[in-house]
Amino acid sequence: MADLKFNKLYFLGPEGTYAEKAMKLLVKMFNIEAGEIIPKNPVTKILQTVDNENDSAAVLPIENSIEGIVRETIDNMIVLKDNSLKITAETIIPISHCLVSVSDEIKNIKTVLSHSQALDQCSGFISKNLPDVQIISVPSTAYAAQFAKEHGSEYAAIASETSAEKFGLNILARNVNDEKDNKTRFILLSRTELKPEKQNKTSIFFSVKNEPGTLFNVLKIFNEYNINLLYIESRPSKKLLGEYNFCVDIDGHKSDKNILSAVSDIKKITNSLKITGSYPKFTNNTVTIS
Amino acid sequence: MADLKFNKLYFLGPEGTYAEKAMKLLVKMFNIEAGEIIPKNPVTKILQTVDNENDSAAVLPIENSIEGIVRETIDNMIVLKDNSLKITAETIIPISHCLVSVSDEIKNIKTVLSHSQALDQCSGFISKNLPDVQIISVPSTAYAAQFAKEHGSEYAAIASETSAEKFGLNILARNVNDEKDNKTRFILLSRTELKPEKQNKTSIFFSVKNEPGTLFNVLKIFNEYNINLLYIESRPSKKLLGEYNFCVDIDGHKSDKNILSAVSDIKKITNSLKITGSYPKFTNNTVTIS
Repeated sequence: MADLKFNKLYFLGPEGTYAEKAMKLLVKMFNIEAGEIIPKNPVTKILQTVDNENDSAAVLPIENSIEGIVRETIDNMIVLKDNSLKITAETIIPISHCLVSVSDEIKNIKTVLSHSQALDQCSGFISKNLPDVQIISVPSTAYAAQFAKEHGSEYAAIASETSAEKFGLNILARNVNDEKDNKTRFILLSRTELKPEKQNKTSIFFSVKNEPGTLFNVLKIFNEYNINLLYIESRPSKKLLGEYNFCVDIDGHKSDKNILSAVSDIKKITNSLKITGSYPKFTNNTVTIS
Repeated sequence: MADLKFNKLYFLGPEGTYAEKAMKLLVKMFNIEAGEIIPKNPVTKILQTVDNENDSAAVLPIENSIEGIVRETIDNMIVLKDNSLKITAETIIPISHCLVSVSDEIKNIKTVLSHSQALDQCSGFISKNLPDVQIISVPSTAYAAQFAKEHGSEYAAIASETSAEKFGLNILARNVNDEKDNKTRFILLSRTELKPEKQNKTSIFFSVKNEPGTLFNVLKIFNEYNINLLYIESRPSKKLLGEYNFCVDIDGHKSDKNILSAVSDIKKITNSLKITGSYPKFTNNTVTIS
């Protein structure tokens, strides 16, 4: 029997993206059963859809080891209407970009397309090997591969090996990302919560009063309860330049006694606080996809 | 006599960008004299050039009220070779995007181009008013306007009013950014330091040992010395997912006694610490451009 069951499971599409790979890994790790598996983009539309459909879930990129958090995911998660939508699980996928084209020679390439994050991750390779090409940013690496296939030998895409295979493109160069240890963390967003495991992680979003010391006072509470802060990021309030909301990841589960107490204390000094999920921490011992 | 004098002053070009507007404002605010004023892009190349030319300065976007910090600027500032290059000054420019085209009717538009941040800032307007257009991200709003001019009536750009005037384009809609109070903060990067003013700001970059509690201990020191934290952001170490460097902005000047003491204490518990500048804090009373 499946541990998690959804009517529809969306992932950031089209087919052939790293999100599809992450979705498959999550399905295996957590024994997920889905009535339908649907590629969709962009992130904003996936989140709106899952927000409106009671029995749906989504797999979305949340953080890359080179670029940092995926703002489109974080900022749109914050404005979800249904508070029962939470991060249910996470997984980490190694990213290895390829330069792919209908052409089999790099010298024919006049335009390179990819997702903006992928272009950023390969900017060293591009400026060294393709200094004079036009660079176009498109919604996904898989879309870039499809475009390169349709537009012929002057176009190349920065995309996954899977995309190259899917569209029958030549791989002109492999692992072209400037930092070779490039990984992306993906989350499963749904209305289901898993039982606490050995190692858990909790994501919290809060906004503080715009007064000196309030952020520090929040962090002090985590420290007093011996809670390890894994990550902190300011996100603009989108109202005033210099006014921020904060996303933090901490070690532990929201049902842990110390986290319960800390959250209760922090609520007293923040404008708003939302737990965006407690979920099993991904470790290298976790099952990997074959 | 000029307060600041540079051989070359670069800004994120081409002409017509918001960076040019910021550059003009900074020139007026700080009485800058420049041998040459040069539009250049992208950010990476400007920073490399200024790093290699002893008497040059640059005006670059660093933070937007909707999107957050400009990662391209922060991440490339961190790797500058010349440690004497610092943030000399800051200014804030209101951003009001227009939809501009050779065409004078919105219904003719099949493709919309702009800088990715501008496209993000107008995504609500675009999905409501131009639901079926192709969206292409290009290096700047001014380049988008130029492209729209050259490619005719099926193309529109999200760009400034200045760009529309420069390329003789029609303004199909004004202030199309979804959040109307949209501002961008720009910095002047140079080897000159201004004298402390009434209100100053200091930017610091540090990396901590990957142990529980170290980030908190750094923030505790700022708190002990009564230093107000304006801003904090994690940036990926680019080595390991989950390992971060931190950028903070604090109130005060690096020559203030309490900041001197705090920095000295913090250096003992961090892997590295770099003051990226102490400069006059931009306030609403500061001169505005006519």
